[in-house]
Amino acid sequence: MLKHLPLSDVYTLLEPGPVVLLTTAHKGHANVMAMSWHMMMEFEPPRIGCLVSGANFSFTALRKTGECVIAIPAARLAAQVVQVGNASGRDFDKFAAFGLTPLPAKRVAAPLVAECFANLECRVVDTRLVPKYNLFVLEVVQAWIDPAQKQPKTLHHQGHGTFVVDGETLCLKSGKP
Amino acid sequence: MLKHLPLSDVYTLLEPGPVVLLTTAHKGHANVMAMSWHMMMEFEPPRIGCLVSGANFSFTALRKTGECVIAIPAARLAAQVVQVGNASGRDFDKFAAFGLTPLPAKRVAAPLVAECFANLECRVVDTRLVPKYNLFVLEVVQAWIDPAQKQPKTLHHQGHGTFVVDGETLCLKSGKP
Repeated sequence: MLKHLPLSDVYTLLEPGPVVLLTTAHKGHANVMAMSWHMMMEFEPPRIGCLVSGANFSFTALRKTGECVIAIPAARLAAQVVQVGNASGRDFDKFAAFGLTPLPAKRVAAPLVAECFANLECRVVDTRLVPKYNLFVLEVVQAWIDPAQKQPKTLHHQGHGTFVVDGETLCLKSGKP
Repeated sequence: MLKHLPLSDVYTLLEPGPVVLLTTAHKGHANVMAMSWHMMMEFEPPRIGCLVSGANFSFTALRKTGECVIAIPAARLAAQVVQVGNASGRDFDKFAAFGLTPLPAKRVAAPLVAECFANLECRVVDTRLVPKYNLFVLEVVQAWIDPAQKQPKTLHHQGHGTFVVDGETLCLKSGKP
């Protein structure tokens, strides 16, 4: 059972730069892509900048619907994340093909991904930099966490199929959030 | 001795989401801040999106000069990175105070940071989203790597003074860069 995550905690998930999945739903067709080009832009309400290339099948769905889900996979999903990243939703249903389970979201049509430890329901709030850079500004309107996945380790893409997994944690005195 | 890094390799450094330092130079005053809100936007020439808050002393320097250096620290610099992030350049010279060595860059006035394993000389190329979001679009014009720092482990900020250090590396077959 997924649990609500306060919107003020969303930045702690995305700021470290994990590989994420982005889902969309358009004309009855749900799709999922892998993405590493994203960043936090505001704490609360959480705002996220991300690049979705016009070459991605998801681009049109995101542009037309203005909605998506950002789902964060733990390292145990690495093989599936790579499969998602290497395939196009133009050709087939990537959820079924790669053993990912779409779940209904609460506030957007795009599905949550049941296997991911966090799911962020997002709306597009600014498209001014889409024509030049494919940069979308999103706002998180609802966030979910899977409490059964304790201290999940995330993946970070280093290019050429190499990923680094979260290692040791350092607790240092920081005056800022 | 720093070594040139091909611009086409820059994304492999920033895509994994490391905490970085951002340096500026304005009116003879060099400054350095810590930053986690950044993302890759293009492979080559490498384009980077980043947020620099108007509350940061670096904001004015970046706005006025249109130049900065993004320097990437390895985990051994964690304590200094936190000190940089907790202090303001309004008050004193953070390089001297925290034992960081500014080096002249080749194509921008902002300094490199000698202790970092990578340094990216950047120019601001788009400020359209600065008024609303403090989002700067940068282009990397010159990149340097310290060949003496082999396989550096980077830091990823999880909020509240907690950082995760790079752990295990996974090599998976990826069809995309």
